[in-house]
Amino acid sequence: MKKIRIGIIGYGNIGRSVELGVRQNKDMELVGVFTRRDPSTIKIITKDVSVYHIDHAQNMTEQIDVMVQCGGSMSDMPVLGPLFAGMFNTVDGFDNHAKIPDYYDAVNKKALEAGKVCIISGGWDPGMFSLIRLYADAILPEGKTYTFWGKGISQGHSDAVRRVKGVKNAKQYTIPLESAITAVKRGDMPELTPREKHKRVCYVVAEEGADKIQIEHDIKTMPNYFADYDTEVYFITEEEFAKNHNGLPHGGLVLHYGKTGLNKEHNHTIEFKLDLSSNPDFTAHVLLAFARAAYRLNQEGVSGAKTVVDIAPAYLSIRTGEELRKYFI
Amino acid sequence: MKKIRIGIIGYGNIGRSVELGVRQNKDMELVGVFTRRDPSTIKIITKDVSVYHIDHAQNMTEQIDVMVQCGGSMSDMPVLGPLFAGMFNTVDGFDNHAKIPDYYDAVNKKALEAGKVCIISGGWDPGMFSLIRLYADAILPEGKTYTFWGKGISQGHSDAVRRVKGVKNAKQYTIPLESAITAVKRGDMPELTPREKHKRVCYVVAEEGADKIQIEHDIKTMPNYFADYDTEVYFITEEEFAKNHNGLPHGGLVLHYGKTGLNKEHNHTIEFKLDLSSNPDFTAHVLLAFARAAYRLNQEGVSGAKTVVDIAPAYLSIRTGEELRKYFI
Repeated sequence: MKKIRIGIIGYGNIGRSVELGVRQNKDMELVGVFTRRDPSTIKIITKDVSVYHIDHAQNMTEQIDVMVQCGGSMSDMPVLGPLFAGMFNTVDGFDNHAKIPDYYDAVNKKALEAGKVCIISGGWDPGMFSLIRLYADAILPEGKTYTFWGKGISQGHSDAVRRVKGVKNAKQYTIPLESAITAVKRGDMPELTPREKHKRVCYVVAEEGADKIQIEHDIKTMPNYFADYDTEVYFITEEEFAKNHNGLPHGGLVLHYGKTGLNKEHNHTIEFKLDLSSNPDFTAHVLLAFARAAYRLNQEGVSGAKTVVDIAPAYLSIRTGEELRKYFI
Repeated sequence: MKKIRIGIIGYGNIGRSVELGVRQNKDMELVGVFTRRDPSTIKIITKDVSVYHIDHAQNMTEQIDVMVQCGGSMSDMPVLGPLFAGMFNTVDGFDNHAKIPDYYDAVNKKALEAGKVCIISGGWDPGMFSLIRLYADAILPEGKTYTFWGKGISQGHSDAVRRVKGVKNAKQYTIPLESAITAVKRGDMPELTPREKHKRVCYVVAEEGADKIQIEHDIKTMPNYFADYDTEVYFITEEEFAKNHNGLPHGGLVLHYGKTGLNKEHNHTIEFKLDLSSNPDFTAHVLLAFARAAYRLNQEGVSGAKTVVDIAPAYLSIRTGEELRKYFI
């Protein structure tokens, strides 16, 4: 069997997870890693696979079936997404929700011109959670969908805390509030404010001699990030930080409550919950399943930008239609 | 907007639920109900919609866009599925898991000949649970998927209890065992016997003077249905039966535990859980979402039998691609 040849753009947390994820997919092989850094400074895990400067990718359009975009959504992907859509089938986890329509249009234009399939915003949210939101809304239109994140580390919020004066290191955990989840399951169909859905807990290593009262105040009053939430700040030592807060766990749930029946006398709860000990690993695995779909769809002559809701699930699976009907349906 | 014209074959629990479900889908309208009984004996809820004998359906191929099959999987659908696939786009909840491959082949042949789209085995299991099993396996191939049913009423098992000598009425609840769910979430990846996954609880109204000890024994030792499970039997009065056991609640969960990372050091749990106060209502709502997909795919020139994993989720939604990208991704 000819394997699907995977390229990785960007070798951060997600890029490394994609590299390892390829090993779990027997129909895939890693062909190259592309970076904007000096390739000689990057050591990857896979033997006999080279690291290239990103400018070299354009010479490898015949050697790579799908490029997995592993850069950041803020500054990297808005440029690299459309650029690579003009050369390769791609998948990415573009997660700047408000910008998805514009990003889709930009990638779609290039993908159509190049005759490639580019699946954007894979991952878990956007990604798997998007799928569940759509399924739930389509099945129970007289209902309401809620998304909760956590318990897990928000990298954007952790970065924000680290920028506070006097902070040496920090991790921020987003924690969904049980009271809100209970209210949704009970059928209250509540309108929930950010403060009612999640709380934020920060573990902070302060610089020596820093004003901890000031740090706590600066965090809790930070607009957009913390001011709208109940935030807890705990100061810990570097040792404790290294020991207990070095991972990237995350997760969350999508909850849909809907009503049916002649007099809306029946109620139904759809719940999809993820508990992930490594956010980048899970994200990478989702991207690879959609990489398989991108490759197959393109083999069938399809082109253009797609989101996860445009992909028939069977395209994600290594298994044949017969196997799926026999063992999975 | 031209509405999708829905026909219903069979007016039992699911048929009635489909009738009501159409009202929640603004792009659909009910055109007719088809029955093997005398149509004059059937009173439906919707005004200005007729009940026809099932033999009349062949005259209405121009008036109906999608037929929703609401008969039984054991004896009705193996005949009616292929028959109607030769005339209409159809959806059904064929749930005889072992027979799905054969049923698919029979429906596919007729649907291809007639140029129709026929989506089989929609509902929640098979149906939504099938989708989750596929997604989970595709994302985390080094993992294991478990399906639990309940707490809810199994109609097949309730029927079996009612056939026991001395039983006047009965309902059987399938209940998943927390010990098994906990073991899966903990990462034991256990091999679970039927007895370790579920228990069965029967509420029985005995005939006057019946031998209750004999009834309990006959139930608990019944092969296929109860012998392989821990079964509890409770005798109750007709009044209590009518008061507390007249609904058709059901639900269940699909749990997938998988590992990632260089040394499999990371673990992830995917959980999809349904809590349904009316099993037929929820099933009907799933069928209607797939009816929308069947209609749209056929409009695009697609034909043949499909299962839920062959359908891109966006086809289920009344919303446009733009709306989905803006609000759901």
